[in-house]
Parts: sequence; C-alpha cells; structure tokens
Amino acid sequence: MDQATQADLIRVAHLLADTARPVTLAHFRTAALVADTKALSHFDPVTIADRAAEQAMRDVLARERPNDGIFGEEYGQTPGTSGLTWVLDPIDGTRGYISGTPTWGVLIAVGDADGPIYGIIDQPYIGERFAGGFGQADVTGPMGTAPLSTRAPRGLDQAILLSTFPEIGTPAQMAAFQAVSRQVRLTRYGMDCYGYALLAAGQVDLVIEAGLNAYDVQAPIAVIEAAGGIVTDWCGAPVHAGGQVLAAANADIHAAALKILRSHP
Amino acid sequence: MDQATQADLIRVAHLLADTARPVTLAHFRTAALVADTKALSHFDPVTIADRAAEQAMRDVLARERPNDGIFGEEYGQTPGTSGLTWVLDPIDGTRGYISGTPTWGVLIAVGDADGPIYGIIDQPYIGERFAGGFGQADVTGPMGTAPLSTRAPRGLDQAILLSTFPEIGTPAQMAAFQAVSRQVRLTRYGMDCYGYALLAAGQVDLVIEAGLNAYDVQAPIAVIEAAGGIVTDWCGAPVHAGGQVLAAANADIHAAALKILRSHP
Repeated sequence: MDQATQADLIRVAHLLADTARPVTLAHFRTAALVADTKALSHFDPVTIADRAAEQAMRDVLARERPNDGIFGEEYGQTPGTSGLTWVLDPIDGTRGYISGTPTWGVLIAVGDADGPIYGIIDQPYIGERFAGGFGQADVTGPMGTAPLSTRAPRGLDQAILLSTFPEIGTPAQMAAFQAVSRQVRLTRYGMDCYGYALLAAGQVDLVIEAGLNAYDVQAPIAVIEAAGGIVTDWCGAPVHAGGQVLAAANADIHAAALKILRSHP
Repeated sequence: MDQATQADLIRVAHLLADTARPVTLAHFRTAALVADTKALSHFDPVTIADRAAEQAMRDVLARERPNDGIFGEEYGQTPGTSGLTWVLDPIDGTRGYISGTPTWGVLIAVGDADGPIYGIIDQPYIGERFAGGFGQADVTGPMGTAPLSTRAPRGLDQAILLSTFPEIGTPAQMAAFQAVSRQVRLTRYGMDCYGYALLAAGQVDLVIEAGLNAYDVQAPIAVIEAAGGIVTDWCGAPVHAGGQVLAAANADIHAAALKILRSHP
C-alpha cells in the first residue's frame, strides 16, 4: 500500500473517532439514558448513542471513503469495492457505558481479508486515544502524546491479567481462564476494551476473553500489534474474525499463557 | 460549626487534592513504577507515589490546619487538639494504579468522632473530582461541574451493583454478596473507589465490599450521603471506622440489599 493511501486511512480513522466522541458523550451519564435489550436471553444493552455514533461514522465513510466496505456492530455489513473494510464498534462495553465507567470505547479498524492494518481505541470521556498501525503506535490523552510499547517479558507469577467478567464463556473456557488466573500475580476485571489499550500501553501483560466479535477485536489487534504485542485465539491462530482472545505483551508471556489454555480443551 | 470553619475545611480539602494530583501522576503509568509488598501473606502493593502523596498532604495540613488530627493510610495517626481529624488515603486502589486503570483515587475526608463531615474522591488522571458535605455535592471533570445526586428507587432486578473483586471477604461474606448479586440486573467489578463516585453520581445503585479501612470509606461516606445516598455496614450500622460496606443510592434499595445480606450471617 502506498504512503498516500496509508496517510488517508489514518486521517479518516481519526476523523471517525472525532465524529463519534460528541455523539457518544451526548448520552453518557445522563438520567435519560435508555438501554434496551438485543436478545431477551442475554443482557446486552444497546443505547441510542450506540446507533447514532455508528450512523455518524457511516456518514463520514460514505463521503470520505465511498469505495470501502463497512462492518459495524449496529448496522452490519456494507460491501465495498476497494478490498478494504472499516470495522466499527461505536460503543464497545455498553454495560460499562450504562454504569458510567470510563472503560468503554469507540473501536475503529480498517483492514483487508487478512485482518486489520490500522486501528483506534478511543475513550471519549477521558479524552484518550490509542492508535496503531503502519509501523507506529501512540496514545494521546490527559498527559499529552506518547509512544505505545508493550511490556518486556516477565514470569507469569509477575504478570497482570485483565478480563471484563469473571464469568467467561462456557464452563470449560472458564476453567481454562482460571488456570491462567491462578498463575498470575494479579487478575483484574471490568475494563472492557480499555484493557486492550492498557496492554498496548505496557501496563499489563495479558488480556484473555471469550466470545468476542470481529468488531470487538480488530481495533485492539491493530493497536497491540503495532505496540509490539501479540493477539491470537486460545489455540494460537488468527482471531480477527472473533472468538476466544488471548492478547499478550510479548511472545514469551503469550507462549506461557497459551500452553495453559491449550491444556484445558 | 460556623460557616467560616466550614469554608476553611472545604478550601483545605481541595488544596490537599490539588497537592496530591501531580505527586500521584508523576509515577502513574511509568515503566519505573515500583510496587513493593506490605505483607508477604497478602498482595497489597504500595508505591513510592502513595507515600509521597500522603507526605505532601501532611505538609499542607501542618501549615494550614495545625490543630487538626490526621489518620493516613501510610503514616498512621497524628493526634490533634481541635476535635477534627483528616482521614487520608493517598492512593486508594493501588492494584488499579499499578495496572494503569483510571479507577484509583485520592481519598480525603475530615470529620469528628461521629464520622466524616466533608469528603473528596479525586481521580487525577481523568482530572475528575467528586466532593460532598455541608449540604452540597458536586463533580468537576471533563464535562465541567455538575451537582451529584444519587438514583431514585428501582427494584433490585433493575439495579446495577459494583464491587472491586469477585473474591469478597470470607466464604460467608462472599455467599452474602453473591446472594445480592444474583438479584440485580448487572454486577460489575474493578472500579476501586471510583465505584463510590459513580454511586454518588447516580450511575449505579449499590456498592458492596468487605474489609475496608476507615481511610477507604470516610470520603465515600461523605460524598455519597451529601448526594442523597446511604452508607452503612452489612447490619445497617455506621461504618466510618471501616468493615463491610453497603453503599446505596436510596433508602429503598438499601433496605432491599440489607435484608439479603442479613439473611446470610
């Protein structure tokens, strides 16, 4: 891909994040926030802001990148002709959003059939943006702009593991997760997509989750890989289409966690 | 207490929070962050920033309020003669701090033997301050300043419950917590003291934790009560000296949660 195209993708990715910020914040922590339910059998609130933010980003893409495809959480697939697809999750972590926590984010990725090539994890309330791809990764937030770099290897017994819920996937998946959790120094919950940003920023060693969709994971993959980390499924295979996610700061800790996950089929 | 004294306590409380901010942020998300361990038997990291922030706040109090007592997490009790004591936790949520999450806070309370009369929960990274007492409560942060007001009553089945860890207290305490958790719409973990701030801000209905110290709970009590909420122990008694905490948005949801906790002695 030529540099002009790369620069345009970066420009549009940030334009999308800029566009989504006020739309998501307009409903955040308001008394009138209404969360309805996608499926009666599973608590998965969708807010007005979720839909409005995706529509606003789609309007930008229709104008700026009309030949690219779109895959968004709220409005699904829109085919393109360029071979590139934008993968959008307007509010990842809607449960965090309706609880007022600053751990949800706007996820934006662009890529091809092989996966994402550039991604953004944006936290509108903090005003913090983690971006990565095309050989660079940085965060811009309350402390200014800084490069992102994942942690150097350390033993599992010194590692920090993040996940969103203690109740992960199937009973067998939960057992596998807990086997890793028992080996690490500290396990923390509740970070939604912000956990992947912290991994890219070198603050934690592992994020392990199950049941993710493509739009949940593509932006984290782009940002983490650009920062030096590794993201695969629990078998070590590519995970940009979604599934069980093992995100790791480096190859050593990835291998150590993968060994435990694989031993719990 | 006369209005001039109230105004001076408010002034000094905010001065303490202003003082602690740069000290805590100087070490936040740095590669050199060193967390040592208070007790070998229990993972409880204490950072350089924790100690430096408390010392900086003690220096302010020595100058501004020399007759008041101090009880700080790091340096313990300093007796006073005024009948007022400042209760300080320079970094509440050190595990969140060492993980890079924006959920830790600086906790500042001032009170007498009956408990806190004014308190601040400050989150330096977001730049967000929740303050309450003397008949007013407000938050100042990325969206400006707004009054704090807890949620109106709703059924437990519509309630959001926060706690820091899924592993709460003793097995009996965990069973009691889980009995409440099973009744609510959504349980989220990992918010540290930020959970109490979200309760005061009307975002969630309940925060339930065990094993808190006076310096963990006094600022939350002041802010939540000023915002219209109720904070007691799991028997409904005052909890400003620490223990098992039930913080609730209103009397109805407090009674509903208390009934369940009491039925699991």
